[in-house]
Amino acid sequence: MARTIIGIDPGTRHLGWGVITTAGTKIDAVSYGVIHTSVDAPLTDKLMEIDDALEEILGRLQPHEAGVESIFFSKDAQAAAKLGHARGVVLLRMQRAGLSVAEYAPAQVKSMVVGRGRADKLQVATMVTALLRLRTRPPADAADALAVAITHARMSAVTRLLATKTR
Amino acid sequence: MARTIIGIDPGTRHLGWGVITTAGTKIDAVSYGVIHTSVDAPLTDKLMEIDDALEEILGRLQPHEAGVESIFFSKDAQAAAKLGHARGVVLLRMQRAGLSVAEYAPAQVKSMVVGRGRADKLQVATMVTALLRLRTRPPADAADALAVAITHARMSAVTRLLATKTR
Repeated sequence: MARTIIGIDPGTRHLGWGVITTAGTKIDAVSYGVIHTSVDAPLTDKLMEIDDALEEILGRLQPHEAGVESIFFSKDAQAAAKLGHARGVVLLRMQRAGLSVAEYAPAQVKSMVVGRGRADKLQVATMVTALLRLRTRPPADAADALAVAITHARMSAVTRLLATKTR
Repeated sequence: MARTIIGIDPGTRHLGWGVITTAGTKIDAVSYGVIHTSVDAPLTDKLMEIDDALEEILGRLQPHEAGVESIFFSKDAQAAAKLGHARGVVLLRMQRAGLSVAEYAPAQVKSMVVGRGRADKLQVATMVTALLRLRTRPPADAADALAVAITHARMSAVTRLLATKTR
């Protein structure tokens, strides 16, 4: 049974998103991109731009599940708060659309996709390109989002398997 | 010309709100309260509870302007991020309702309402009760929200006066 998963790499200026389908161990890219908000717009406008764009993407691609990257807490409080605003809007939109939402830490995503929790952005993008058999390397934020979606596909496959075995 | 202002003290567990009307130097309370989210609910559910409650309040009381307390950055990154999620949802809801939104730092609110930037919550609640001629002292989170609304009423009164004088 094929599942459609959206991955999100949140940000108030650049928000990466990527949609994949998975059936068994097979994973395919559906679509991906980066939502760029207006540079000089107030935060309220940026949040609405993000929400409008996500609503359009969810309506068009109809994913069933979402993986959202969690906040890396070595960031300072101001950066964490800013990112929190974008994540809050993302989580609310996913919830409103009826998706099940899981969170993954950046190190967890890197370790699942590249095999090393401290991989850099280029390594993530390169592995994502290979795993999804893409012709060109996606922009860094979209690649991160696709990596989150792949992590969710694999993590939930393991969870399902364990659930089946213990039955 | 009377203006209706909503003040918000954001939080993911307890979100204070207060609506006032102001005409000239006169300020009156319209309504206030605290949105308590479900203790054991996932963050996505809490955010939707906040959004639903705010939507209902905005629809019922029809404020034109909003003041939202900004994040106090001596908090740790994790607390700041959590608060950011709630603020993101609040700002988006205000923007969707077409309100003009201003932010005020906690010290700015205390200094405007109590006269001291380091006043405690009880002093804020006591002053808010006196200024709005309330019969009972509102719960702390609602009092903070009313204090933000009062700050907005006063700050924008000053801004308007300056704007008129320079013309």
